[in-house]
Amino acid sequence: MSKYDLKHIKQFSLDSRKLKNRNIENMIGCVQVPLGIAGPLRVNKQEHELPLATTEGALVASVNRGCKAIKLSGGCQVEVENVGATRGPVFKVRGLREGKKLMKWLEKNEKRIKQVVKEGERYIKLVGMKPKMVGRSVYVRLEFETDEAMGMNMVTAGSEKLARLIKQELGIECVSLSGNYCVDKKPSWLNFIEGRGKQVWAEVVAGRRVVKEVLKTTPEKIVEVVYRKQLLGSIMSGSMGFNGHYANVVGAMFLATGQDIAHVVEGSMGVTTAELQDKDLYFSIYLPSLMVGTVGGGTGLETQKEALGIMGLDKAMKGDSLRLAEVIGGAVLAGELSLTAALASQDLAKAHQKLGRGK
Amino acid sequence: MSKYDLKHIKQFSLDSRKLKNRNIENMIGCVQVPLGIAGPLRVNKQEHELPLATTEGALVASVNRGCKAIKLSGGCQVEVENVGATRGPVFKVRGLREGKKLMKWLEKNEKRIKQVVKEGERYIKLVGMKPKMVGRSVYVRLEFETDEAMGMNMVTAGSEKLARLIKQELGIECVSLSGNYCVDKKPSWLNFIEGRGKQVWAEVVAGRRVVKEVLKTTPEKIVEVVYRKQLLGSIMSGSMGFNGHYANVVGAMFLATGQDIAHVVEGSMGVTTAELQDKDLYFSIYLPSLMVGTVGGGTGLETQKEALGIMGLDKAMKGDSLRLAEVIGGAVLAGELSLTAALASQDLAKAHQKLGRGK
Amino acid sequence: MSKYDLKHIKQFSLDSRKLKNRNIENMIGCVQVPLGIAGPLRVNKQEHELPLATTEGALVASVNRGCKAIKLSGGCQVEVENVGATRGPVFKVRGLREGKKLMKWLEKNEKRIKQVVKEGERYIKLVGMKPKMVGRSVYVRLEFETDEAMGMNMVTAGSEKLARLIKQELGIECVSLSGNYCVDKKPSWLNFIEGRGKQVWAEVVAGRRVVKEVLKTTPEKIVEVVYRKQLLGSIMSGSMGFNGHYANVVGAMFLATGQDIAHVVEGSMGVTTAELQDKDLYFSIYLPSLMVGTVGGGTGLETQKEALGIMGLDKAMKGDSLRLAEVIGGAVLAGELSLTAALASQDLAKAHQKLGRGK
Amino acid sequence: MSKYDLKHIKQFSLDSRKLKNRNIENMIGCVQVPLGIAGPLRVNKQEHELPLATTEGALVASVNRGCKAIKLSGGCQVEVENVGATRGPVFKVRGLREGKKLMKWLEKNEKRIKQVVKEGERYIKLVGMKPKMVGRSVYVRLEFETDEAMGMNMVTAGSEKLARLIKQELGIECVSLSGNYCVDKKPSWLNFIEGRGKQVWAEVVAGRRVVKEVLKTTPEKIVEVVYRKQLLGSIMSGSMGFNGHYANVVGAMFLATGQDIAHVVEGSMGVTTAELQDKDLYFSIYLPSLMVGTVGGGTGLETQKEALGIMGLDKAMKGDSLRLAEVIGGAVLAGELSLTAALASQDLAKAHQKLGRGK
Repeated sequence: MSKYDLKHIKQFSLDSRKLKNRNIENMIGCVQVPLGIAGPLRVNKQEHELPLATTEGALVASVNRGCKAIKLSGGCQVEVENVGATRGPVFKVRGLREGKKLMKWLEKNEKRIKQVVKEGERYIKLVGMKPKMVGRSVYVRLEFETDEAMGMNMVTAGSEKLARLIKQELGIECVSLSGNYCVDKKPSWLNFIEGRGKQVWAEVVAGRRVVKEVLKTTPEKIVEVVYRKQLLGSIMSGSMGFNGHYANVVGAMFLATGQDIAHVVEGSMGVTTAELQDKDLYFSIYLPSLMVGTVGGGTGLETQKEALGIMGLDKAMKGDSLRLAEVIGGAVLAGELSLTAALASQDLAKAHQKLGRGK
Repeated sequence: MSKYDLKHIKQFSLDSRKLKNRNIENMIGCVQVPLGIAGPLRVNKQEHELPLATTEGALVASVNRGCKAIKLSGGCQVEVENVGATRGPVFKVRGLREGKKLMKWLEKNEKRIKQVVKEGERYIKLVGMKPKMVGRSVYVRLEFETDEAMGMNMVTAGSEKLARLIKQELGIECVSLSGNYCVDKKPSWLNFIEGRGKQVWAEVVAGRRVVKEVLKTTPEKIVEVVYRKQLLGSIMSGSMGFNGHYANVVGAMFLATGQDIAHVVEGSMGVTTAELQDKDLYFSIYLPSLMVGTVGGGTGLETQKEALGIMGLDKAMKGDSLRLAEVIGGAVLAGELSLTAALASQDLAKAHQKLGRGK
Repeated sequence: MSKYDLKHIKQFSLDSRKLKNRNIENMIGCVQVPLGIAGPLRVNKQEHELPLATTEGALVASVNRGCKAIKLSGGCQVEVENVGATRGPVFKVRGLREGKKLMKWLEKNEKRIKQVVKEGERYIKLVGMKPKMVGRSVYVRLEFETDEAMGMNMVTAGSEKLARLIKQELGIECVSLSGNYCVDKKPSWLNFIEGRGKQVWAEVVAGRRVVKEVLKTTPEKIVEVVYRKQLLGSIMSGSMGFNGHYANVVGAMFLATGQDIAHVVEGSMGVTTAELQDKDLYFSIYLPSLMVGTVGGGTGLETQKEALGIMGLDKAMKGDSLRLAEVIGGAVLAGELSLTAALASQDLAKAHQKLGRGK
Repeated sequence: MSKYDLKHIKQFSLDSRKLKNRNIENMIGCVQVPLGIAGPLRVNKQEHELPLATTEGALVASVNRGCKAIKLSGGCQVEVENVGATRGPVFKVRGLREGKKLMKWLEKNEKRIKQVVKEGERYIKLVGMKPKMVGRSVYVRLEFETDEAMGMNMVTAGSEKLARLIKQELGIECVSLSGNYCVDKKPSWLNFIEGRGKQVWAEVVAGRRVVKEVLKTTPEKIVEVVYRKQLLGSIMSGSMGFNGHYANVVGAMFLATGQDIAHVVEGSMGVTTAELQDKDLYFSIYLPSLMVGTVGGGTGLETQKEALGIMGLDKAMKGDSLRLAEVIGGAVLAGELSLTAALASQDLAKAHQKLGRGK
């Protein structure tokens, strides 16, 4: 690439030997993305500072304001459920009878299949199989526990073992190791309904005074915005994202911590609710499909590892990926609360004019 | 942030004064993401090298392979249509009669509204309004031309002008400047059907020998994978992404060139088709909603600007954003063709094992 | 069919000569479906009695109760917009360039196309064309006014004329006169967003006392049911029907008046809203795609014609189909209000036990 | 209703005493719908004649033609799986912790819940519970076996028992016995993905000569129509119905046999596939959610009972509802095959002109 003058791209501190063919090929350098800090976010009685990598002005400030409102309200509650990474290979059968036969075989041999998939794998464990037949195609949604890794590569390898076994035992071909019944990096109702990776719920009861003084609006106005925008508006537009901007916060946290940014797609799905509780505000977010890990992928890169370290999640400890999901859930709650308040108080445009890249 | 040791994050070459409150707040440094080069991609008779920022092993190599197959097939054809950036504010009316009145007023005053929105704005132009009523909520999808910028901030400002005008003239309140009838950073059928930002179509006729020698499979196998995975599989999973991995390529190009990575969400929607043409392969992709710009946002950051420069799109020239959409469309085609071939030839897992972060 | 003893099926009063090959083939008799009357429904200052054909106990009683609540509240407001019947043929092109050429040709020749389609047709008029391209397929959504008929057959004939013209002028083949871009008798976001047939909105402000005395509940409880069931519940289940039971009322009115019952599918889509207005209840329904006619199809059969006559819509008068849509909109409002109230007051199961087939 | 002259509506043979408040209220008579016979349909080695009630000309003839093609191809294969009727009540909790508590309680008490629901019920059996939480709402999808009845009323009663138990044990209120997590009479991805009522698959391998002589087209043309219309066309229109006209056949069979016609909505969802098998045609349909019964509802009415009798399903025998689903599946296959062929051979419009109500 000598024909380009790339003095900034060529300036980086990552150990390129470690990168060689692990994270990228034909590497010519690095792009740099500004990293800001929001918080502290008080979630489940603990406090975290939030590393956010973004080029969108006002985002860090907005999440920060949400964190403040949450802290002054006594913190937020977050629940995380590990669904697991999924792969959905597609098999070609001769017809319905053979399809039924395959599905029965999967049921009968579940235990053995789990062993075969496990062989020689330290980190993954097959925990569920959900088959679906249409015409001559049979899809099998395979659910895996993947320890602290996001795990899609391990999961693909595990799926390949099952495909080989099915070929041997039944002579049925796997047409594609991914049959889009996974569903990876595409919005889908299957992931929305069944969940994928981690399912995350977060809630806060924000006091009326906090809403007034920190968020510059009222609980009533926030409830109305959530009703007309996040719910009715998304209904009218046929959306899978019944929220304001989950993707912004998920994207900034993913980029900072070395997650796969294509998984922001699943992270954009979900539902925000707001209700009055006496005079105060009940506010919640729900992320059905958050794909995160604290080992593997981009998490080992120096800058990303340091960003994980800001939350104490850089030591590859058991449970770190659940903790990361928990913190991201709280961050999404903070960002969603603050944006909704900005819309309710009509100062979104102003905020962007003041902070934003707009001009 | 002195309590953390962030020697890598603190090492960056961006001009932090320029960043101050334009792209981020509370900045503590930068994350670095490896940047690789794929190509050359031959699109509409021109050749481009593709900057891809990613931490996913095998991605650059895969796009590169697709570019080779496209070049050996005489290049790809890409069509781009500028739909425009959209904002969809929601207004609260007393009932159906007042809602109808608002919609009629918008129709009758279109010319004037366009002038009011234009006042003092150099870059945006209101080109369309699509209202939708349900109960006491009226949504207005505003379509704007935004020159070479992605333009969401300008568009928000423009929408605010209309909201003020409606308040003055009809006394009708805007509940939220974004009513999720935009639909920004959420998957939605409204954007899939109407298009948003740029609509991009790309196609190539890949010769049988090229498919065999470069992609290690056959046209028939690729057609079958597209049929059972991208089409049937996504149908069965209720997906809006009838493709293999648009989000990977869109994400890597967006990150490299300073686009808003939350817009990868819209970039994950779209449809891949594959058909036999005599003995050769017809292969196409369709992106209904690609939000891109070559000025504003993160495009001005030094590393991102250099990445745009690799494609000659760093000079803020008229039409650059259309050219960027064109190149990204071709890159998505290349990545999709190569991944589909890898699935057809059953070497996806191997590729990741060899190149990937998996182990 | 002499081998069956069909004394009831063989007993009917329809003029079978008129039916011969117009409504059915191999006719062996008729099924009889009980017809009940609900109302009067007060809509836009007029009163109508509602013919409902159903075998579901409690349905007529429920609609009747809704009508009473509406009448005591001063009647309901209904707005109807005629979108038109649509057909969406699909054409096969050689590639993107030819697809663009076809789309440009449609734009340039709109006036002439409308003439060609009109030739020799008394009742239909082409009012809009919306093309969509993906790979080698081009879909054209054709919107027709069809006078007082639902009109799908006329519309199919009109589409065939366009297909022939395109073949002559451009040599492009129509693969299927219906390319499912119509979208007929299937749920779809395209119809939800663009509307099809008639779009119908209905609303009522039900007084607190009326809600208490007639509907046995409170405005607050109805608002909560609509929020948790019709909106949030349908969101969580990935539904296109954000309502309680539009399909019941649409189905019973369609069956009574000789509409095509397969169009109940589109009639099941739509959105219910409920809001507090001071102490009273604002309640609304929205039907984006109601396919109705007062001539043609089953509307000419003796019993169905009599049912239309109950509403004074059996004289083939100009505007009857809009009036029928208006009355059905009001009936759906009545049925939805009453069911939601029954759920709010927890007596749904009781009602079915008392009135229903369940016993 | 003496003010109307309803000589046809008043002429009916149903026993109105039996109807009184079981199937309808305020009954004034009956509508008559023409009943035609198609077939014999050869399905799983048996033959059935198909009763179809419709006012759409060409429908019976079209199904009949499909039956002929199927018979000459050696019959069709149909698979039926009983998912069960579902109800999805919604409960209001104080927050995420109480929601989790409810979900854990459901898991721990499954056995006991099944007993409580079963008490005093002869026909229903709770077989599954699927909870879903968002904010302060918890939805529980209850799956019931309902013997030979469609069973929604029994299922509602069963759900009420659970709601009472939850109130007693946990003090948690049921806001609505139907929380639209059922999902009844609305199109939804939840039903598409999980199935509801009966899931039905049907397939036939139609010989090339049969396709040519009976269906007047070729396997290749049928495959192309299914690809561009049923699959790609429905994808482009955001549909849940990847088929030609399931709703027509489901509707005509439902109306003839006394099913709830509002359930045609779920019956319109599903996927058609067509593939070449050597020189012949593989053709299949898939119905994820068919709600049928052979006892209860309208099945006991004299004409409807006679229609069931034509298929030997009027004796309330064990397994009749599965057999009815099987026959309807075959009928849908026949109708879909014939319509697709008509589109492929470009004679749809002609068929309607000849047979249809169009003119």
